[in-house]
Amino acid sequence: MAVENGSSKKWCFRGNEALVKSSAITVRGVLNMVMENLDPNETRPVIPLGHGDPSAFPCFKTTPVAEKAISNALFSAKFNGYSPTVGVLPARKALAEYLSRDLPYHLSPDDIYLTCGCAQAIEVILTALACPNANILFPKPGFPYYEACASVSGLEYRHFDLLPENNWEVDLDAVEALSDENTVAMVIINPGNPCGNVYSQQHLKKVAETARKLGIIVISDEVYDHLAFGSNPFMPMGVFGSIAPVITLGSISKRWIVPGWRLGWLVTNDPNGILKKHGVVDSVKGFLNISTDPATFVQGALPEILERTKEDFFSKIVAILKDSASLSYAKVKEIPCLTCPSKPEGSMFLMVKLNLSTLDSIQDDVDFCVKLAKEESVIVLPGVAVGLKNWLRITFAIEPSSLNDGLSRLKAFCERHVKKE
Amino acid sequence: MAVENGSSKKWCFRGNEALVKSSAITVRGVLNMVMENLDPNETRPVIPLGHGDPSAFPCFKTTPVAEKAISNALFSAKFNGYSPTVGVLPARKALAEYLSRDLPYHLSPDDIYLTCGCAQAIEVILTALACPNANILFPKPGFPYYEACASVSGLEYRHFDLLPENNWEVDLDAVEALSDENTVAMVIINPGNPCGNVYSQQHLKKVAETARKLGIIVISDEVYDHLAFGSNPFMPMGVFGSIAPVITLGSISKRWIVPGWRLGWLVTNDPNGILKKHGVVDSVKGFLNISTDPATFVQGALPEILERTKEDFFSKIVAILKDSASLSYAKVKEIPCLTCPSKPEGSMFLMVKLNLSTLDSIQDDVDFCVKLAKEESVIVLPGVAVGLKNWLRITFAIEPSSLNDGLSRLKAFCERHVKKE
Repeated sequence: MAVENGSSKKWCFRGNEALVKSSAITVRGVLNMVMENLDPNETRPVIPLGHGDPSAFPCFKTTPVAEKAISNALFSAKFNGYSPTVGVLPARKALAEYLSRDLPYHLSPDDIYLTCGCAQAIEVILTALACPNANILFPKPGFPYYEACASVSGLEYRHFDLLPENNWEVDLDAVEALSDENTVAMVIINPGNPCGNVYSQQHLKKVAETARKLGIIVISDEVYDHLAFGSNPFMPMGVFGSIAPVITLGSISKRWIVPGWRLGWLVTNDPNGILKKHGVVDSVKGFLNISTDPATFVQGALPEILERTKEDFFSKIVAILKDSASLSYAKVKEIPCLTCPSKPEGSMFLMVKLNLSTLDSIQDDVDFCVKLAKEESVIVLPGVAVGLKNWLRITFAIEPSSLNDGLSRLKAFCERHVKKE
Repeated sequence: MAVENGSSKKWCFRGNEALVKSSAITVRGVLNMVMENLDPNETRPVIPLGHGDPSAFPCFKTTPVAEKAISNALFSAKFNGYSPTVGVLPARKALAEYLSRDLPYHLSPDDIYLTCGCAQAIEVILTALACPNANILFPKPGFPYYEACASVSGLEYRHFDLLPENNWEVDLDAVEALSDENTVAMVIINPGNPCGNVYSQQHLKKVAETARKLGIIVISDEVYDHLAFGSNPFMPMGVFGSIAPVITLGSISKRWIVPGWRLGWLVTNDPNGILKKHGVVDSVKGFLNISTDPATFVQGALPEILERTKEDFFSKIVAILKDSASLSYAKVKEIPCLTCPSKPEGSMFLMVKLNLSTLDSIQDDVDFCVKLAKEESVIVLPGVAVGLKNWLRITFAIEPSSLNDGLSRLKAFCERHVKKE
């Protein structure tokens, strides 16, 4: 018998394959696959319209106020040690004040849990809700990290549609039809990733009323909070926390354009104390007891970041995003084989439908993106990565001149591949 | 029917109770419970001999070199974005070089995965190995975070003893007796937490040979690497990676005394490529795809931290720990109801046995620690938190004058509670 380790026994371990499957579809993973098709002989620069991280572009550089806050916390030497598992108190206090400005009631520091970016906040809440047989409702299209985390924690998920003809509002009839006695929560992402929509006050209220009717939590992913530039101002879902319990997820990643700093939060917007009563707060705390924390000095910098950042930093960023959204929408409209159902009013993305029947030898969205990368060095995310096959997610949060260049190349590509009549 | 939400349905979610149970015993949780018993009217300072984070004490302040490296990476603005899920390449390259100095072969950057402290490295490897029916072997006493993570990921665990009479060496006969065809790995912690031991080259080699015989991985937790000050120098388990595959877990938390910076690593020490062949590498990567990352600029600072830290910073820290270990051992020896089987030679802890029969109205280790906190404002960790009931784990990594004061109070407490003959 051939033995591998020179003794009577073979190596008897193997990797957990479920993890490989659960993590197979992530935005980064799909983008990496698309990028492998770039032509190494291409001399034009690569135009990355695929991901939601504009931190590398000069016009999206973070404010020096935030950098100074981090360096002050670092050199104070007060934040070199482990933090409490829920986060350091001054940061939770400052964040409670900051978020309460937009709410009809006052958050306490005990409503705030600091996490490693919004991603860890997603992991925490899905794990905390993963009781046997429980299920949760996710939007389609959505952010595939939710599906991956739910798989790993054994939480069943079901999808309701966002309606492109209604500015990507939630199909609330579908939510009711999907839910049963084991449904525990529904997720919304507002401002929207991948759709670039911003929900109205009326729609958010209806979401809360539906959740109340079904007896479920609303998990509101507001990682793109305040990045709104259309007719609806950004409104936190927590405003309706007395109708149904709301768990808000957020971070400094997008508003301050520092996703690499890994500081996010999970917030209970629940003035009636229902989450506590039903053990959700204890489960969140339990999981945080055995999870990693954001760097303590980054937490320590949060009060200064929140207090000292000037309004003009935010308004400059929002103005750039607004112009870029308009440019993208206008340019896409000129391209015959693409349809964008509505002009983006928030976040950093637009969703565009591929009219495959008008294209020659393009099989699907992945094929489109692979060929676009190869021929034009433009990276776009295939819609299948966010749950909508034969759509594309285009990021407009890049340097405006590059955006313009990228959209022109996209147009040239489509014109070259459109069916000749 | 009384309804809670003013409609026909009750709130139908609840928290995942398994999480609350899994995280019930953590070092921080048990210490918090002990600290609740401090006497608010006590005027003497609290002496914290409970936890492994000396960053708050002036004599253990980190080197300015490390602070400068972080600030350089921060202000470079090159590390504000998301990092690759395995970590940024310059940091993995620098760490591969740094760790290879102590190995008979050369690590590649592809052997290195950066994590949020050593804690996340533990979570990653236990989740990556959690196949259905698999089991893993943990040391007793040990670090309860392992048990908590294994519970959450559904990995069965079994305990082998560390032998106090043999300098806390692994009971290798017990390892063989415990293992079966579903055993995938064994964990060692070297330098030892909670025992303060440092394993000899001979013992590490025997561990590797046992693992080879059983066909299992050795997971070597070296978070206290290089904090060795006795007869055995610190030797990484990876030295024996060609006997059995070794996964090394580590971080900058203890050697640089910055646990709050949250930078750790998981390293495959496996020159024969067995981990890759058996899918463990893919599972690790899969889990990292959907896990949070250490702050990108902290990763970006690692090359400078590793290159520029002067030897005298390390030797000063080790000299303080050595003196403190000697002081603790000598003082504990004078206390009649306590026994310390061996003088600590590494890490920051000593394990001390309670001779309960010589004490009056002390029920167990928890009762001892609660009363010690109340009467003397000294915090010590009950052994039950690390798997050994009626022992104590005493941290000697605090300011030497406070350590001396704390040990004197411990002595006074014991003398007061010893049975009168």
